[in-house]
Amino acid sequence: MKKVEDYMISIPDFPKKGIIFRDVTGVTESAEGFSLAIDELDNLLDGVEYDVLAGTESRGFIFGAPLAYKNKKGLVLVRKKGKLPRETVERSYDLEYGSATIEIHKDAIKPGDRVVLVDDLIATGGTIEAAAKLIEELGGVVVKMIFLIELSDLGGREVLKDYDIASVIQYEGE
Amino acid sequence: MKKVEDYMISIPDFPKKGIIFRDVTGVTESAEGFSLAIDELDNLLDGVEYDVLAGTESRGFIFGAPLAYKNKKGLVLVRKKGKLPRETVERSYDLEYGSATIEIHKDAIKPGDRVVLVDDLIATGGTIEAAAKLIEELGGVVVKMIFLIELSDLGGREVLKDYDIASVIQYEGE
Repeated sequence: MKKVEDYMISIPDFPKKGIIFRDVTGVTESAEGFSLAIDELDNLLDGVEYDVLAGTESRGFIFGAPLAYKNKKGLVLVRKKGKLPRETVERSYDLEYGSATIEIHKDAIKPGDRVVLVDDLIATGGTIEAAAKLIEELGGVVVKMIFLIELSDLGGREVLKDYDIASVIQYEGE
Repeated sequence: MKKVEDYMISIPDFPKKGIIFRDVTGVTESAEGFSLAIDELDNLLDGVEYDVLAGTESRGFIFGAPLAYKNKKGLVLVRKKGKLPRETVERSYDLEYGSATIEIHKDAIKPGDRVVLVDDLIATGGTIEAAAKLIEELGGVVVKMIFLIELSDLGGREVLKDYDIASVIQYEGE
């Protein structure tokens, strides 16, 4: 039987020489691959008690939305600045070049909410750390972070060492 | 019992005076609202035979991904230019100010594929028309277009008159 990783597409030297880009569209565009991916992510939530899922724009939506639907939870949208129409809290974080700002609606998290963060991939952990801080600023508790793919050598686990992290596929040595 | 539209948030004079912004985050952030929305969208697919769903970045992903998972289909990503890592076809279309370009992977659609397009909202229909043309360029057949929200007075149905369109909620007079 095929596994989720069999649907992953690896693109050498993209976006620049020496980098292997891990492309999840091979997973999402396949009926079997996508079904497997959601089920495997869902398995990572076994025994986790939580109130709501939060996904980061935009690939986090692709994996967070089916999990929310399947588990009868809401999906909080963590979006790039300027996309959400109501009152938000925002946070900036450093990228390799420059910085980015993400935000969530102030009323999307209630104090005490137990939140699961979902994204397609964890690399350096910068985006997810910023998302977690936003949730905590609103009084939420990040009880778990789940990822389809983990690039193990890029330091994400160290940045996020205060959190409970799990991933479906791990790639090392890049 | 509450209906999907009860979870919609309407924001007057956003992004400019005289416009009522229809905010779907009230739906996505509610467990009940999101569950209802996906089930109602899924009802629009009763009797439709199709191979794959296609969602437009990024709110189309939020509604397309759970439908794909639920119905054991793949989700083709219609993304803004520059986000997809493999070979694509692209198409530009006019916005109120300026233009935008979207693309899909060349291998995401096979000739003869029966495709359902999903988005959160139809207004003028420009984005969805461009997405449909991309799918057709690759030999796909758009058998249905479904939307959570339809702004009935903005001409989308006329632009898309060659397609089979359905929506869950209709707003008139704006």
